[in-house]
Amino acid sequence: MVTMVTAVVGWCLCLAVCHVRGSYIPVEMNKTIQNLLGHYTITNKELFDGKPIFSKEPLSGNLQAEMIYMSAILQTYDKILNQMLKELPTPGPTTAQSSGDKGTAELRSQLNYILKKITNLRIQHYNKPEQLLKMLQPLREVQFNNTVIQSKALWEFIKVYREASSLPNKLEKRRRRRRRQTQMSIRGH
Amino acid sequence: MVTMVTAVVGWCLCLAVCHVRGSYIPVEMNKTIQNLLGHYTITNKELFDGKPIFSKEPLSGNLQAEMIYMSAILQTYDKILNQMLKELPTPGPTTAQSSGDKGTAELRSQLNYILKKITNLRIQHYNKPEQLLKMLQPLREVQFNNTVIQSKALWEFIKVYREASSLPNKLEKRRRRRRRQTQMSIRGH
Repeated sequence: MVTMVTAVVGWCLCLAVCHVRGSYIPVEMNKTIQNLLGHYTITNKELFDGKPIFSKEPLSGNLQAEMIYMSAILQTYDKILNQMLKELPTPGPTTAQSSGDKGTAELRSQLNYILKKITNLRIQHYNKPEQLLKMLQPLREVQFNNTVIQSKALWEFIKVYREASSLPNKLEKRRRRRRRQTQMSIRGH
Repeated sequence: MVTMVTAVVGWCLCLAVCHVRGSYIPVEMNKTIQNLLGHYTITNKELFDGKPIFSKEPLSGNLQAEMIYMSAILQTYDKILNQMLKELPTPGPTTAQSSGDKGTAELRSQLNYILKKITNLRIQHYNKPEQLLKMLQPLREVQFNNTVIQSKALWEFIKVYREASSLPNKLEKRRRRRRRQTQMSIRGH
């Protein structure tokens, strides 16, 4: 009971902070999450174990890197929510719904609501980061012990090395140009 | 034989292109790769199968995304080269080296040379992209069917949703500011 009360107080504080910082969290979303938390309960010890699943602290300030990491977080939420939907019991064969079936239908509807919100965000704003994440996927699956892969990697090496050496310079040049433009626009005022 | 000639011609063309585009490929690197290719041979059909291991075309123009993808490529090269080193036969127990041992020692030295070049690039220029790639790793290992993970994800949802909604706006604001600065600096001239 104490666990639950502390957790709910923590959650209310979190909502208050969200409100103070001026974000736009729909009332329905708050309510849906609250309902779902009433079903998917864990102990205080498990909740406050100091290991949040998602933390972007080390990237703070680098907006593009934050976007890519956030895109991966949204993909993870997609997988978690789909797994939770899959784990819900299927409705009974009778036409009259039992109270258990109704509860399950509500949970399904609430999970689908959150899932839809995630999907909308991904479609509206996270297309480009998702493209990059998709490109990273095959690199994780490269068969390092395959002799054809090893030889092809050697054949591609000079081209890759040239690009890998020149990219940081290109980025630095662009940064310098932007810094100059910023200084010029400040002087122009 | 025809396979080998065609491949070598292709490789020479690749080097010529590198030279024309003004990149700085050390002579020793060219020679080392050529030597390694003499050992790690594949057929023309395998080499020109239209499936290069590394291709960053879809990201062209987005320098930061290119840096992250390139960082992942360099990590992949690190793994491939370490695997190739691991697959080399260990030297015989006698003190006098056989010709096979000498060949292996040469290969080891050449692979280590390429590996060192990769490592230097990663240390000098790819620290930040590697930090992001390191952060993406645990997201791929999240246990979607773990009830504690599912509940913690719900607890963290409001905070994540708020950040995921505000990040694109922050990025757009920064882009607009930069566009304004560019226009002002052009007018200033």
